[in-house]
Amino acid sequence: MMRRLYFHRDSERGIKGTFDWLLEEVEELREALHEGDKEASKKEFADVIAWLASLANITGIDLEKAALEKYNEKCPKCQHSPCQCTF
Amino acid sequence: MMRRLYFHRDSERGIKGTFDWLLEEVEELREALHEGDKEASKKEFADVIAWLASLANITGIDLEKAALEKYNEKCPKCQHSPCQCTF
Repeated sequence: MMRRLYFHRDSERGIKGTFDWLLEEVEELREALHEGDKEASKKEFADVIAWLASLANITGIDLEKAALEKYNEKCPKCQHSPCQCTF
Repeated sequence: MMRRLYFHRDSERGIKGTFDWLLEEVEELREALHEGDKEASKKEFADVIAWLASLANITGIDLEKAALEKYNEKCPKCQHSPCQCTF
């Protein structure tokens, strides 16, 4: 969906510019969480995942596939579900 | 899935600590993209979305629902698909 909506703009902006936008949204998420504003936090979570998807699209990476390749019903480190890693 | 795997650890770590991990993963993604390493970038995209999901879980926010509430087949700003915003 993000590809359909934004790929033409994302690809013009490029990786560096899109990464900078992602970082800005991450900072806005920090502020919304710090203020304990749940409605604002929801919107910022949406923005962060949207920009992350944009960034994946222009680098030719399928975000969902990448996530499921690494995290697939068990922790990639300890191979357990739930995770039983000791730190 | 991230809730099943990690909620017990994420909730112990808390919002601030989990946010700091997310930021670290975003930084690692920047490095992988900068180096043009596609395999490493895939893994870092997976880590960023995993930590973002962890953060959403401990704040009681459904990441997928939040994303679809804001971005749903059209740009939330211009209401078009594809986006036709002018900057």
